[in-house]
Amino acid sequence: MLICSSRDEMKRREAALRFIAALLNQEGRSSLYDLSGLAGGFPVKKSDLNLLETYSGPAIFSSNLQKEGTQHLGGEKVAAFNRTSAAILATLLALVKPGEEVIHYLPELPSHPSIPRSVKLQGASYREFDNLQDFQLTDETSLVIITGSTMDHKVLPLTDFNRIIQISHAKQIPVMVDDASGARIRTVIYDQPRALDMGADLVVTSTDKLMDGPRAGLMAGNSSLIDRIQDKAHQFGLEAQPPIVAGIVRALENFKPQRILDSLERRDKLHKIAGNVFKGVEKTPTGFMISAANLENEITPEGNDNLTKRELATLMAMVLLREHHMVTIPAVGMPGVSDTIRLDISSKDAERVDDNQIIQALKESLEVVREIIPDEEASLSVLYE
Amino acid sequence: MLICSSRDEMKRREAALRFIAALLNQEGRSSLYDLSGLAGGFPVKKSDLNLLETYSGPAIFSSNLQKEGTQHLGGEKVAAFNRTSAAILATLLALVKPGEEVIHYLPELPSHPSIPRSVKLQGASYREFDNLQDFQLTDETSLVIITGSTMDHKVLPLTDFNRIIQISHAKQIPVMVDDASGARIRTVIYDQPRALDMGADLVVTSTDKLMDGPRAGLMAGNSSLIDRIQDKAHQFGLEAQPPIVAGIVRALENFKPQRILDSLERRDKLHKIAGNVFKGVEKTPTGFMISAANLENEITPEGNDNLTKRELATLMAMVLLREHHMVTIPAVGMPGVSDTIRLDISSKDAERVDDNQIIQALKESLEVVREIIPDEEASLSVLYE
Repeated sequence: MLICSSRDEMKRREAALRFIAALLNQEGRSSLYDLSGLAGGFPVKKSDLNLLETYSGPAIFSSNLQKEGTQHLGGEKVAAFNRTSAAILATLLALVKPGEEVIHYLPELPSHPSIPRSVKLQGASYREFDNLQDFQLTDETSLVIITGSTMDHKVLPLTDFNRIIQISHAKQIPVMVDDASGARIRTVIYDQPRALDMGADLVVTSTDKLMDGPRAGLMAGNSSLIDRIQDKAHQFGLEAQPPIVAGIVRALENFKPQRILDSLERRDKLHKIAGNVFKGVEKTPTGFMISAANLENEITPEGNDNLTKRELATLMAMVLLREHHMVTIPAVGMPGVSDTIRLDISSKDAERVDDNQIIQALKESLEVVREIIPDEEASLSVLYE
Repeated sequence: MLICSSRDEMKRREAALRFIAALLNQEGRSSLYDLSGLAGGFPVKKSDLNLLETYSGPAIFSSNLQKEGTQHLGGEKVAAFNRTSAAILATLLALVKPGEEVIHYLPELPSHPSIPRSVKLQGASYREFDNLQDFQLTDETSLVIITGSTMDHKVLPLTDFNRIIQISHAKQIPVMVDDASGARIRTVIYDQPRALDMGADLVVTSTDKLMDGPRAGLMAGNSSLIDRIQDKAHQFGLEAQPPIVAGIVRALENFKPQRILDSLERRDKLHKIAGNVFKGVEKTPTGFMISAANLENEITPEGNDNLTKRELATLMAMVLLREHHMVTIPAVGMPGVSDTIRLDISSKDAERVDDNQIIQALKESLEVVREIIPDEEASLSVLYE
């Protein structure tokens, strides 16, 4: 056993960050390729810097946030939160009372834990569905949440979207769409309408997903609902602070849907080449991925008794980082993070690395993992040193 | 009636921010004097900018945060939160179970609402005390919170501090100190020890109070408690994001206690001159203030039936902003904010404005307020236009 606890996972993350820090200090930012799809970014201008104070910041950036935010998401008003999870917590505190019920509809069960967790904190009850047959509201339902696309980028069909909104509104229940990545994946890649244009009352998106903004939540929708949610956010310290708001504004200004579309052709090509080299490579909306199970088959086709598939995938991600300076989620994610190796071709850094480099990095890392797994000491050092 | 609702207060804040935005755009940052004591700041270096991403940011700044944070606050480990309120919420979620009790001891009742509000959300009970005679723990008490200094900068005596920690630890109950401003006011001005050096298990401070960091919460203390609190923070999106962490690190690096001490002499001088001009000017640890009641006596000594003291103080703050470009809390604060006109002489911008300028601004603004109050239209335009 190489990874025994979430404490070990934290140690692995810290080792990855230490490696990145040393690399950045020695060779600069251009030596690193963050293909996680969650690099985030902070594209404020140097001239913005001395304006990012508690009062000057909102003075300058609030009206731009309204303009850029409503242009991106639609709706009457927007508000920015420290994270999408914080936006969801604020929404539940504002719109749901203890004892009421929240219904969650998503492309595939189960939900990201942040939603049921916040519902529970507010003392409300929670049910989740992924098909229209089972979906049912009760007299206690006070909020319906729809997830537009999952963490694995599975997208909700348009018919489900429309039907859920219709059923909920027939009972005067507000609908919030958790469109963390969906606000771009659904609209840019799948050509679906924006959540608010389909009649949802609220939508929230993560400004670090498929765009180069900071990790933060941007919510839009009905003005009086936004006011109530923002009020709760201020009470508990959930709102985005001025520097983050400025980062969101600049990222929205820079956002080019065309860059995502341009990456699709390259993705298809890379997916095909990678598929010739490894079995079980799967296409994603913005790149390709190898699940831990498929990776295990590839690394030890004869099976192995010693290491779990999560351990193998984590080793692979750490080797990709150490040997090829490529950042993927299993290396840098928090404990409990997905163990799928996902390469995001729409990410900014993907422009600086060519197809051959990516395929070679995967091939060579696979070889290195095969070589080190019999050597526990070497494996531990790759994970934690 | 000029201010009828919290909606009106929001409109007043928006008008103030609009004025600040126009001023900054036309005349630059040096035309503004933020004397609120809550200006915040974001002193990251230009060379930091391209490192403030989701993974690169913590890679570079996490170890500096530990180093600078423990140097400032003591303790084994630190963690950064989006706001001090968010840090308090995370602490309650991590250390207190529903049905348990939180006891709060502070220099003067009542508490800042963020503490009882978070206790209630977690389903625990809450009692607060400001004297040792009444203070009492029960078998249900699972956390004791001490406020080191209030929003009005009233400081807890050292004997109370020591006694509360002693009583709590005798029953193995952890003690968290809310030292939002106290971590600097208490230690630098009142020469008290740091909270953790007095034996508290946790301390949290606001990095925009008496230092030039962003609005954020920095917590330090026992390593295993910090780990549990940080885990809850990640679950609900309460942790500070990489750009904010970088701002905190740079602000801690820049922090000079001597600047606060240097401002005291100037404060004493200004307080004396101001006292010769207005009745009811009071000294604060970092400047001086005029309460709304004292301001009312000064503006309309014969009494007035039309305007509340909050309306008069808000008018005064808006005139100070519009005519003299001086930012005080009643102009820019959120609805429900304190209506005391407080000038913080330890704030960065105070260095760019001389004593005479401050006294003249106060005198002239007082005259303007006296002149416009009979004219409702003029008053409304100062507040909201």
